[in-house]
Amino acid sequence: MLVVFTGGTGGAKLIEGFRFTVNSKDLIIICNTADDFILHGLHISPDLDTVTYTLAGIADPEKGWGINDDSFVVLEALGRLGAETWFKLGDKDLATHITRTRLLREGRPLSQVTKHICAALGVEAAVVPMCDQRVATLVTTPQGDFSFQEYFVKRRWEDEVKGIFFDGIEDAEPAPGILDSISKAAAVVICPSNPVTSIGPILGVPGVRDALRQTQAPVIAVSPIIQGASFSGPAHRLMPAVKMEASAFGVAAAYADFLDAILIAREDQSLKSKIQALGIDAVAGPIRLDSLAHKKKLAESVLSLC
Amino acid sequence: MLVVFTGGTGGAKLIEGFRFTVNSKDLIIICNTADDFILHGLHISPDLDTVTYTLAGIADPEKGWGINDDSFVVLEALGRLGAETWFKLGDKDLATHITRTRLLREGRPLSQVTKHICAALGVEAAVVPMCDQRVATLVTTPQGDFSFQEYFVKRRWEDEVKGIFFDGIEDAEPAPGILDSISKAAAVVICPSNPVTSIGPILGVPGVRDALRQTQAPVIAVSPIIQGASFSGPAHRLMPAVKMEASAFGVAAAYADFLDAILIAREDQSLKSKIQALGIDAVAGPIRLDSLAHKKKLAESVLSLC
Repeated sequence: MLVVFTGGTGGAKLIEGFRFTVNSKDLIIICNTADDFILHGLHISPDLDTVTYTLAGIADPEKGWGINDDSFVVLEALGRLGAETWFKLGDKDLATHITRTRLLREGRPLSQVTKHICAALGVEAAVVPMCDQRVATLVTTPQGDFSFQEYFVKRRWEDEVKGIFFDGIEDAEPAPGILDSISKAAAVVICPSNPVTSIGPILGVPGVRDALRQTQAPVIAVSPIIQGASFSGPAHRLMPAVKMEASAFGVAAAYADFLDAILIAREDQSLKSKIQALGIDAVAGPIRLDSLAHKKKLAESVLSLC
Repeated sequence: MLVVFTGGTGGAKLIEGFRFTVNSKDLIIICNTADDFILHGLHISPDLDTVTYTLAGIADPEKGWGINDDSFVVLEALGRLGAETWFKLGDKDLATHITRTRLLREGRPLSQVTKHICAALGVEAAVVPMCDQRVATLVTTPQGDFSFQEYFVKRRWEDEVKGIFFDGIEDAEPAPGILDSISKAAAVVICPSNPVTSIGPILGVPGVRDALRQTQAPVIAVSPIIQGASFSGPAHRLMPAVKMEASAFGVAAAYADFLDAILIAREDQSLKSKIQALGIDAVAGPIRLDSLAHKKKLAESVLSLC
């Protein structure tokens, strides 16, 4: 069993590689939900959906979010009714949010709701939210505190970040099966997702980090940072706000207490010895995920390292 | 000020006539909400919407419900996610239900929510739900009790009807302004809507029937029944279940305590004297509403009778 920690867009690219290289029944994807938010009264789980759509083969490969060939009729009509339209919800995508919101209101936990949606979309891998409780990433800026989606999408990650915290994380519990799957995994992979706002919340759920420290399985990360810049999203801007160095070394250091090895970019070769001094094996190679061939190749590299 | 009592489809046809014959700012439309129901976790108000879309000029004239040129992308996707799809919700239409549900959950009463939606769609007439509380029509059949939409749409009004009741009606209060507008109206029009399940609930809201009895304004109805059959929907089947005769006479008798005059079909001419014996003026003429010309003509006949 391969246990994978992921956020949305960046992580989903590696997961697409696994889709073609690992039996999907052997995949357990543990997903960040601290970016979840309520919009139009609907519960939106951007990372769960990006991963689910990727595994279902219906993700939009160009945009990195949403469902392919989607239309935006409802969103336009919502706009005419006075609603905010900065978060682009497609029509097919909306059906997921409507269904999730209904099932949550009926009292079902998010992990079960996610299972229902995955089954309906033919996803055989287990997609598991990090917890069933509400945890919300808040980004502190000179302009005020914003939810992650407000900071990232609405305000286009232009604000200076003073701090990041995860509201509700102390009271969260790992979703059913997470701790057990980490302890029994053949390997654990940390996707090239934002170490602060994607992997950070998962590691912050009480018990998860301990489980990673204790598992016998190798824990392998892929750096989301190449030469000081993240290949998708604002990781390199958020890392300094929580005193991480915005580099592959910073990523390795953030995971040092449980990480066995990290794949870094060939361009970051010079960081190898510094990372190895942390007791972490560093392997330099091609880690960009621009095409399906790259995604499959990186998935294979990760698997061989496991 | 013209105060109009209405349900959905049938009543909206006459209201479309008024749209072209009355200054819309002088129109107060009091709308049945006992057909409202929750589907996909969304609060749907079929009669409010049909009336609002009609006044906004965006109703679907062929179907009699929904918005013209609508698509059904979300509904199909909901179906793939395991939801029931017997109630045809278009994409543009869904934006209304999403907005209404959000505003209600934020604690705003339905009357204010309706005002918001009407303003956004450019409707100048006042569209007012009969009350801000939840009232639900339940249809008792040998197969069990059904909500009105289940009975009417899902089960295609094929069940034998043993009884009809309006759950919650005793605790309802007329929405703000309704009683006042009835007492100050220049005239009150009862649309050719189902006297049992469309007009019945409005009359059942405590205080409304008394206001109609007491107003100085003429109260005029248009019969929804021609020669024993309703021209839209199941009125003629539901009337006997509550001991009304399924005829224009039955309609007049149901409103006898407050009605001044009723427009009946030319084909029902023979019922005139029987209706007049109730102390109600009966005027026979063309009351079908098949074309826009018919709708305008009937609206003018009603206005001249007022």
